[in-house]
Amino acid sequence: MNFTKMHGIGNDYIYINCFTETVTDPEKVSVILSDVRKGIGSDGLVLIMPSDIADFRMRIFNADGSEAMMCGNATRCIGKYVYEKGLTDKTDITLETNSGIKYLTLAVKNGKVSSVTVDMGKAVLLPKDIPVDSPLDRFIAQPVEVGGCSYDITCVSMGNPHAVLFMDDIDSLNLEQIGPEFENHRLFPARVNTEFIQVIDSHTLRMRVWERGSGETFACGTGACASAVAAVLNGICPRDEDILIHLRGGDLIINYRSDETVIMTGPAEFICDGSVDDEYIEKAKEYAVCRS
Amino acid sequence: MNFTKMHGIGNDYIYINCFTETVTDPEKVSVILSDVRKGIGSDGLVLIMPSDIADFRMRIFNADGSEAMMCGNATRCIGKYVYEKGLTDKTDITLETNSGIKYLTLAVKNGKVSSVTVDMGKAVLLPKDIPVDSPLDRFIAQPVEVGGCSYDITCVSMGNPHAVLFMDDIDSLNLEQIGPEFENHRLFPARVNTEFIQVIDSHTLRMRVWERGSGETFACGTGACASAVAAVLNGICPRDEDILIHLRGGDLIINYRSDETVIMTGPAEFICDGSVDDEYIEKAKEYAVCRS
Repeated sequence: MNFTKMHGIGNDYIYINCFTETVTDPEKVSVILSDVRKGIGSDGLVLIMPSDIADFRMRIFNADGSEAMMCGNATRCIGKYVYEKGLTDKTDITLETNSGIKYLTLAVKNGKVSSVTVDMGKAVLLPKDIPVDSPLDRFIAQPVEVGGCSYDITCVSMGNPHAVLFMDDIDSLNLEQIGPEFENHRLFPARVNTEFIQVIDSHTLRMRVWERGSGETFACGTGACASAVAAVLNGICPRDEDILIHLRGGDLIINYRSDETVIMTGPAEFICDGSVDDEYIEKAKEYAVCRS
Repeated sequence: MNFTKMHGIGNDYIYINCFTETVTDPEKVSVILSDVRKGIGSDGLVLIMPSDIADFRMRIFNADGSEAMMCGNATRCIGKYVYEKGLTDKTDITLETNSGIKYLTLAVKNGKVSSVTVDMGKAVLLPKDIPVDSPLDRFIAQPVEVGGCSYDITCVSMGNPHAVLFMDDIDSLNLEQIGPEFENHRLFPARVNTEFIQVIDSHTLRMRVWERGSGETFACGTGACASAVAAVLNGICPRDEDILIHLRGGDLIINYRSDETVIMTGPAEFICDGSVDDEYIEKAKEYAVCRS
């Protein structure tokens, strides 16, 4: 089976072109190939497939074999893949995902995709839809006690729940300790991803993120979107203008528009092309354990 | 640049055929390709090269860019590589390493290498050569206090220092806590790798290992050798007979011969073949930081 490994600011997946390859048991294949010791090593598996309702369809599986709804970093990689591998010559692409159709715009220089812009949809602010256990109609800069300290928290859903905090210094934070206290706080019935934001200026933020179920990660596209939305709602950054976000894995540009949609622009990179022995995968399937 | 990823009981490296490929700055390339996020993901990089004094030569680099002396698991993978990729049709192979020439014997079934046997050289038992800070001429089943408990320890060098302990239950051990206490004990001037061994019967051992500088690992070939030697010296297993060792990553067979040499037999597996964009590597070299 042929594969391509790509990353978007350090969020790395194995991409399979399902126009030419057939993947049976993608959950198990994701577990097998994601394992760095006995597989390739990745955050998961992405299938690039035909679609009846869009230009392409993506399915994305986590390293534990569970299927994900969407991933902004993987979406940008698909934009680069389908263009540079010649699956399309369009620079405006529709992509069917498990959380609806996403719209991609490619910036092309000398035949190479230098960056990809993705319409990430509308930010959800109503607490019961995020979900946040609160009777308010917006949860903006609300004081919340977590682990014995009080924090002003802004909550946003970008398809998944986020709590955003602004602070002077994010480098000295002990996320291993405080991350789980936010994640499992009684305020968040579906747990929460928490973004710790340092404001550089009105158009520049630095971010660290604790993702529910994953811990600290180097790149969270929806977290960057939620952080820009929270910065606008708190009067820190302007609406309808590009906000540069420095994540540990790289930079994203987010624009929170007047119509509530959030636009994300960022890089995508090819790492390698390769082929895995089919017999090796079949043998490994006997032992692969997926999260049920 | 073309590469092959292989593993020996979960010890995974990127292998480069340097008969056809040229690797400049292998230290940096190891750091870049070993990174699971922005590279392929591996324990390091192995170069398969021509030799003036043996059939082949290997150089092995850790994921931090430092050059290693030897690795039993990588040695077996090289045996499989050179035979199945057609670089040789010999099944007895000499391999030049940074710790001398190693002798490999391949077991071949239907054109495939099913296992590789490596002569790992002589076990060193003299404390000053291991090194262990002791006036004894052998360090066998000596009581040592570590972290407030007394353990009977046997010390062996297989080119690197090992302390071997026999105990009833290795599953419940908290290696994160006691591993560093052994590693940094005053008895071991060059620190030490520690093997925790559960005896199943006179020909079968189970092993967990804490490697100096790495923490708990799933596979340590020299650790398995040292453990078999220690078991023979303690009268647990017989000399000149095969001893099966279950490591977390898989199984090895060790034979401690009357002439003091240690013979290791185990599997090697291909994971994938691939190619990395040279431009991608060159760009990444600007940022790669190696351990000096």
